[in-house]
Amino acid sequence: MSNTYGKLFRITTFGESHGAAVGVIIDGCPAGLEVNLEEIQHALDRRRPGQSAITTPRKEEDKVTVLSGIFEGRTQGTPISMVVNNKDQHSHDYSHIQHAFRPSHADYTYTAKYGTRDYRGGGRSSARETVARVAAGALAAKLLEKHGISVKSYVSQVGKIKLQKPYTELDLNQIDSNIVRCPDGATASRMIGLIEEARDSLDTIGGVVSCVVQGVPAGLGEPVFDKLHAELGKAMLSINAVKGFEYGSGFEGVKMRGSEHNDQFYTDEQGNIRTRTNYSGGIQGGISNGQDIYFNVAFKPVATILQPQQTIDDTGEDITLKGKGRHDPCVLPRAVPIVDAMAALVLADFLMRQQANKV
Amino acid sequence: MSNTYGKLFRITTFGESHGAAVGVIIDGCPAGLEVNLEEIQHALDRRRPGQSAITTPRKEEDKVTVLSGIFEGRTQGTPISMVVNNKDQHSHDYSHIQHAFRPSHADYTYTAKYGTRDYRGGGRSSARETVARVAAGALAAKLLEKHGISVKSYVSQVGKIKLQKPYTELDLNQIDSNIVRCPDGATASRMIGLIEEARDSLDTIGGVVSCVVQGVPAGLGEPVFDKLHAELGKAMLSINAVKGFEYGSGFEGVKMRGSEHNDQFYTDEQGNIRTRTNYSGGIQGGISNGQDIYFNVAFKPVATILQPQQTIDDTGEDITLKGKGRHDPCVLPRAVPIVDAMAALVLADFLMRQQANKV
Amino acid sequence: MSNTYGKLFRITTFGESHGAAVGVIIDGCPAGLEVNLEEIQHALDRRRPGQSAITTPRKEEDKVTVLSGIFEGRTQGTPISMVVNNKDQHSHDYSHIQHAFRPSHADYTYTAKYGTRDYRGGGRSSARETVARVAAGALAAKLLEKHGISVKSYVSQVGKIKLQKPYTELDLNQIDSNIVRCPDGATASRMIGLIEEARDSLDTIGGVVSCVVQGVPAGLGEPVFDKLHAELGKAMLSINAVKGFEYGSGFEGVKMRGSEHNDQFYTDEQGNIRTRTNYSGGIQGGISNGQDIYFNVAFKPVATILQPQQTIDDTGEDITLKGKGRHDPCVLPRAVPIVDAMAALVLADFLMRQQANKV
Amino acid sequence: MSNTYGKLFRITTFGESHGAAVGVIIDGCPAGLEVNLEEIQHALDRRRPGQSAITTPRKEEDKVTVLSGIFEGRTQGTPISMVVNNKDQHSHDYSHIQHAFRPSHADYTYTAKYGTRDYRGGGRSSARETVARVAAGALAAKLLEKHGISVKSYVSQVGKIKLQKPYTELDLNQIDSNIVRCPDGATASRMIGLIEEARDSLDTIGGVVSCVVQGVPAGLGEPVFDKLHAELGKAMLSINAVKGFEYGSGFEGVKMRGSEHNDQFYTDEQGNIRTRTNYSGGIQGGISNGQDIYFNVAFKPVATILQPQQTIDDTGEDITLKGKGRHDPCVLPRAVPIVDAMAALVLADFLMRQQANKV
Repeated sequence: MSNTYGKLFRITTFGESHGAAVGVIIDGCPAGLEVNLEEIQHALDRRRPGQSAITTPRKEEDKVTVLSGIFEGRTQGTPISMVVNNKDQHSHDYSHIQHAFRPSHADYTYTAKYGTRDYRGGGRSSARETVARVAAGALAAKLLEKHGISVKSYVSQVGKIKLQKPYTELDLNQIDSNIVRCPDGATASRMIGLIEEARDSLDTIGGVVSCVVQGVPAGLGEPVFDKLHAELGKAMLSINAVKGFEYGSGFEGVKMRGSEHNDQFYTDEQGNIRTRTNYSGGIQGGISNGQDIYFNVAFKPVATILQPQQTIDDTGEDITLKGKGRHDPCVLPRAVPIVDAMAALVLADFLMRQQANKV
Repeated sequence: MSNTYGKLFRITTFGESHGAAVGVIIDGCPAGLEVNLEEIQHALDRRRPGQSAITTPRKEEDKVTVLSGIFEGRTQGTPISMVVNNKDQHSHDYSHIQHAFRPSHADYTYTAKYGTRDYRGGGRSSARETVARVAAGALAAKLLEKHGISVKSYVSQVGKIKLQKPYTELDLNQIDSNIVRCPDGATASRMIGLIEEARDSLDTIGGVVSCVVQGVPAGLGEPVFDKLHAELGKAMLSINAVKGFEYGSGFEGVKMRGSEHNDQFYTDEQGNIRTRTNYSGGIQGGISNGQDIYFNVAFKPVATILQPQQTIDDTGEDITLKGKGRHDPCVLPRAVPIVDAMAALVLADFLMRQQANKV
Repeated sequence: MSNTYGKLFRITTFGESHGAAVGVIIDGCPAGLEVNLEEIQHALDRRRPGQSAITTPRKEEDKVTVLSGIFEGRTQGTPISMVVNNKDQHSHDYSHIQHAFRPSHADYTYTAKYGTRDYRGGGRSSARETVARVAAGALAAKLLEKHGISVKSYVSQVGKIKLQKPYTELDLNQIDSNIVRCPDGATASRMIGLIEEARDSLDTIGGVVSCVVQGVPAGLGEPVFDKLHAELGKAMLSINAVKGFEYGSGFEGVKMRGSEHNDQFYTDEQGNIRTRTNYSGGIQGGISNGQDIYFNVAFKPVATILQPQQTIDDTGEDITLKGKGRHDPCVLPRAVPIVDAMAALVLADFLMRQQANKV
Repeated sequence: MSNTYGKLFRITTFGESHGAAVGVIIDGCPAGLEVNLEEIQHALDRRRPGQSAITTPRKEEDKVTVLSGIFEGRTQGTPISMVVNNKDQHSHDYSHIQHAFRPSHADYTYTAKYGTRDYRGGGRSSARETVARVAAGALAAKLLEKHGISVKSYVSQVGKIKLQKPYTELDLNQIDSNIVRCPDGATASRMIGLIEEARDSLDTIGGVVSCVVQGVPAGLGEPVFDKLHAELGKAMLSINAVKGFEYGSGFEGVKMRGSEHNDQFYTDEQGNIRTRTNYSGGIQGGISNGQDIYFNVAFKPVATILQPQQTIDDTGEDITLKGKGRHDPCVLPRAVPIVDAMAALVLADFLMRQQANKV
C-alpha cells in the first residue's frame, strides 16, 4: 500500500523486473500541459541499461507507451498511464537464486513480510521499478519548466574519488558530456577508471549524486511534517541503494558555529531578497527561500557481485551463491536521471500545493 | 495542510510558540493500550527547557493535559488530544523582531508563503512544536514496548567532537547519566565543555544524534515509496534544524566495495536468521530484516545567537539585529527525546500497517 | 484513524460527550482569511441544546476558545485549534447505562470494535462531536463567502409532514424565522406540533434536511471517485442519525425517462451557460455546472426515548432499559447548522483542489 | 487527483472510453491471496455490453490482462495491474459531438474544469471506467470470501416498477436467472417489458439497485468520518448516473417514531448478539453490528437518447443534437456488478483497517 508518491501530483508505479511490464499512473497532473513523448523517452534513455561501457551491458530498449490521459498532445487532467514492456521475461533460468537469500538484497525481507516473493530477479525490489519514476518525472519536469524551475543532478563522488568543487564552480550543462555524468572532465576520468577497476575485479562501488534545483520561488514546501527538504529526503531515500541524504551544509554543517552558519539576508540591486551565503541550501523552516536548493544522495555499492558469496537459502541452510548475468558495477551514472525525476516530482507536488493555498 | 504525520498511527500537531498552547491529536492509536501519564510527562521533561546548565535557562513546566481518548487509564480507539499550555505568552516585547527577517530563521519564508506570520518568536516554525511530537511519541513507545521494540537515541557528535565508538560498544542505559546525553562519559565531558565555550562566546554549535532501534521483527516497512528508512528519514528531517540523515553504512558506505559491504546471512544457534555484518542498518529493500536499525541525524547550529547580525527587515532595508533572551547554545541534548519520539511514531505506524496486511 | 475529513481544507475532530472537551484542528485553511469569532459562536448557537421548546432542555453554553492558528484576526496558514469545554462532565450517574447496550445506539458496536467504550453517555459516538464540525464549518463558510458561494439548509420534512414546495419557491432568508427551521411558516407550525406530540408521548421522530448551495462556479468536484456529490454524500452520511442522501432528482428521478430528465443547455442573455431544468442538481459527471446544487439528507428518529425498552447488557442478559435525562425529541432543527457546516467543508476543500489544478 | 479509492485496499483506475485501454492498479491487496483470472473475467462479463437484448448491442470482449502483482497464481503484496484494451478506438467519427455539450453529460463540466476534453465519446466520464472497478472488485470479493463475507446486488426498481418484497423474502441465488437481474421472476418480466418499451421509443429509463452484504462480523467501519455507511454511500455515489443512496430504513425511516425504529438487542440460542428488527441496516454508529447490511442505490435514466435534443455547442450557440450509435436504454442490469464491486472494495478496505487496529 505504498506504491503511490505525492499528494496532488501523484504517481503510482507498478511492475516486477521480470513480469510483463513496469509502468506508472500519474493522477493529478494539471490539464493542458503540452507533452512531447520524445522528451519522456530521452529521460528513459539516460536511465537505460547498456548505454555505456560502465553500465550493465544488458540491452533493453525501454520504449514507453501511453495508454491514457494525453490527447492531441496535451494532458487532459485525467490519469496518465505509461507502460514499458519488459524484454524476454520468460527466457531465463532462475534456479540458482530461486531459493537463495542473496546478501544485501531484499529476498529475505520480502519473504519475511509477504510469505512469498517473485524469485525471477529482484521482482518488485528491483531498480527496474525506477523506469516508472523516470517517465513520470519527465512530465513533472515539463510542469516545472513552465514555472522556470530546473533540476540538475550529477555524480559528485565514486568510491573515495570526490569532486572537490561546489556546484557553483561547475558547468551543469556538461553533465552528459561523459559517461559517468560528472561535469568535471578530469574527475570524471578518474571516476570512470575506478568503476572499470571495480568491474574488472568482479566487484562494485558506491558513490554520491548531487542535485541542484534552480528557479524555485520563495514559498514552496509545507511546514511542519512535509518540509521541502523532508519530502526531498524521503523521495531520495526511496530510491534503491540510497543510504543517506543531506542538504545545504549537511553533515559538515554540524561542525560550524551559528555565527558562521547563519545566512545573512540582503536586498540585491534588482530588489530581490537574497542571502550572502547559502548554508541553508535554499530552504528555511521547510520552505524555499528563493536561493538555489542543493543536496547530496549517498548510494551504496551494488549488492549483486560476480564473486561467490556465503549466504543461506530459504530453509536456513548455508549455501555458496555464484553470481552470474550482466550487472552494473556502479549505479551512479544511471542514478542521475532517477534523482532528477524524484526531485521534479517533489517540486511539482509542492508547486500545486502552494497554488491551492490562497483565500 | 501538513501538520499530520503517519498513515495509521497518525498525529496532528498544532500551536505557535507564543500562542495559548501547543498540542497534538493522535488518531489511530489502537484501543486498550494502558497509558501512564507520568511516562508521557517524563518524556516531556527530557525535552524541557531549563533542565541543565547547557540548555536555555528559560523555565517552562510543560505539563501535559489530556482532553480526550483516554478513559479509565486506557486508550479508547478514539482521538487522543494532549495539550501543553504556553507560559506567559503575552508578557513579552517583540518589537525588535516584529519586522526583522532573522538570518537562517523562517521569518522570511513564512512571510513569502503565507503573506503573514506570527512575529512573537518563531510562531509555528519554533521547535516548541516538538512538545507535541514528544507527547505523542511517548504513547507510540508504549505500543512498541508491547511488541518488544525499543528506541534509544544519544548525542554522538557536538561540533568536531565525535564519539568514535559504534553503538555496539556503548551502554545505552547510560544515555541520561550526563546532561549532554552521550553514553560515553569522557566524550560527554568534552562535549559539555565545547557547548559551554560556544555559549560563553554568545554563539551556538551543531552536532549529531544517533539512534538505535532494537527488537524490530523482520517485515516492517512498505516498499516502494514508504521504505522504512525513507519514512525514518522524512520524520527526522522534519525536526527543526536537521540537515541530514543516514542509516547503516550511510555516507561512509559509498567508499566501500560490494564485496565488503554485503551483509552475509547465516542461521544462528537458536535458528534465527541473522547477518554477519550490519552495513544495511537492519533494513533491506525498505523492510526490516530483524537486525538492529541504526541511523544518524545531523543538526545545524542554533540560528539564534546573542551577537549582533546584519540582515534586512520586511521592507527590504538593512538592519542590525541585536539578539536577546535565553536560548540554547546547542539543541543536541534536548533533541534526543525528539528523535526518540519520531522514531517511535514511524515504527508504530509500520507495525499497524503490517498488521493490516494479511489475507 | 478516521477522525479527519478533507484533503486540503482538512479537519480533525476529537472529544467524547462526557470527557473534558470537544474540539477541532483545521489544517489547510489558507492564510489571510479574516475571522470573526462571533460568527463561529453564532453557528454554534444554532446547534446549541436548549435553544427552544422543541430541543433538549439541557443547557450548554458551548463557548468556543481558539488555541492556535489565528493571530491579529486572521488565519496564519497554520493549524487552527478550537475547543469547547464540556459542562459538568463528572457530576452524573451512569450506572443505568454503564453495562447496557442501548437499542440503535453504538454501545454494542464500539464494544465489539474496540473492546471498550466510554460509557458516560455516547462517548465518541455522541452527536456532541458535531460541535467541532460546526465550528470548522463556520470557517469554511467564510472562505466560500469570499468566492460568492452560500450554503443554506432547512428542514423540509418531519415525520410524514413534508414541505411540498421546491426550494425555488421558498424565501431562504426565513429559515431561522421559526424554531423548526422550515422557511414555510404554515408547514413549520405543523412540524412543530408533530415534534411536540412526539415529545409528549415520550417518543421521537425523524425528518429530512434539504440544502441549497448557490454561487458555485462551474468546475468544482473531482472525477472519478471524489465526485462533488459523492463527497457531499459521504459528508452528510457521516453525520449522526443520517440514513440517506439524494441530490438533484434523487430517488424520484429513477422513474423518469431520459428525454424528460436531461437538462438542456442554453446561453442566457448575459452570455452565461445555463440549463433549462436542473434535475442534475448542479452537478454533471461529478463536477459543478454553475447551476444551484441541492440535496436532501434523511435523519432517523432519535434513538434515546424516555420509554422502557427491552435490550441486553454486556454479558448478553436481557434487561429493561429505563430512559432518563433530557433529550431531543427530533434532531432536525439542530441538524440544520451541521448540514450547513459539512456542505461548507466539502465545498471549501474542492475550491482549494481546483485552485491547485493549473499549469 | 481523485482516481484512487480506498485507504489500505486501494485502487487507482485509468483510461478514457475511446483511448487505448482502461485499467486499474490495486495497491495494498494482501499477499498470498489465490487468484483465478476466470473469476475476474466472469465479473467483467456480467458488466459487458452486448450481453442481452436490453443492453447496448455494442460488442466488446473486455478481456482482462494482468501486468503485475500476481505470480504463480497468488498475489505478491505488490501492485496488481489489470488492463482491458478498448476496441477499435480510432475507427469512429466524432464530428457530431466534438463541439457539442450534450445534455446531462459531462462535456460542459469537463471543459469548464480542465479547459479541454477528450471528445471521442465520454472520455474519462464514460461508464467504461467502471470496467476497472469491476476487475478490482472481483479481487476484493476473493478476500471477503476468505472471511465469509458475501455481497449480492440486484435490480429492485425500474422506472415505476418496484419490487415490493424485502430481500429477506427473495432467493438471492436467482439474481442472474434473468437478463434484468431481479431475483423475482414476475417483477423481472415487467421490468424487461418497460426497458424494451423505453428502448423502442428511443428513450431511456432509470431504476434502483439494492445490495445485501452478509457475513460481516461486528466491528467493521471507522468512526467518525469514515463510517461504514458513509464510505458505502460515497462509493456508490461515485458510480456514473447515481443520484441517491440510503441504507437500512433509509428515507422511509424518517416517518417512524423512535419506539418503532429502535432495533432491540437479544441473545440468540447460539449465544450470538442479534437485533429483533434491522432498521439500522446492520450498522450502528458507523460500525457493523453483525446483522445483514442492506442499502439502495438510485440510478437516473441514461443521458444518451436517440432522439434529437436542443443544446449548445462549445461556442455557446444553439444546436440540435442528433443521437446515434448503440446505447443502453437502462443501465440497471449492467450496474449490478458495479455495485457489487464497489461494495466489496469498501468492505475489503475496512477489513484491513480493522486488522491493523490492535495493541
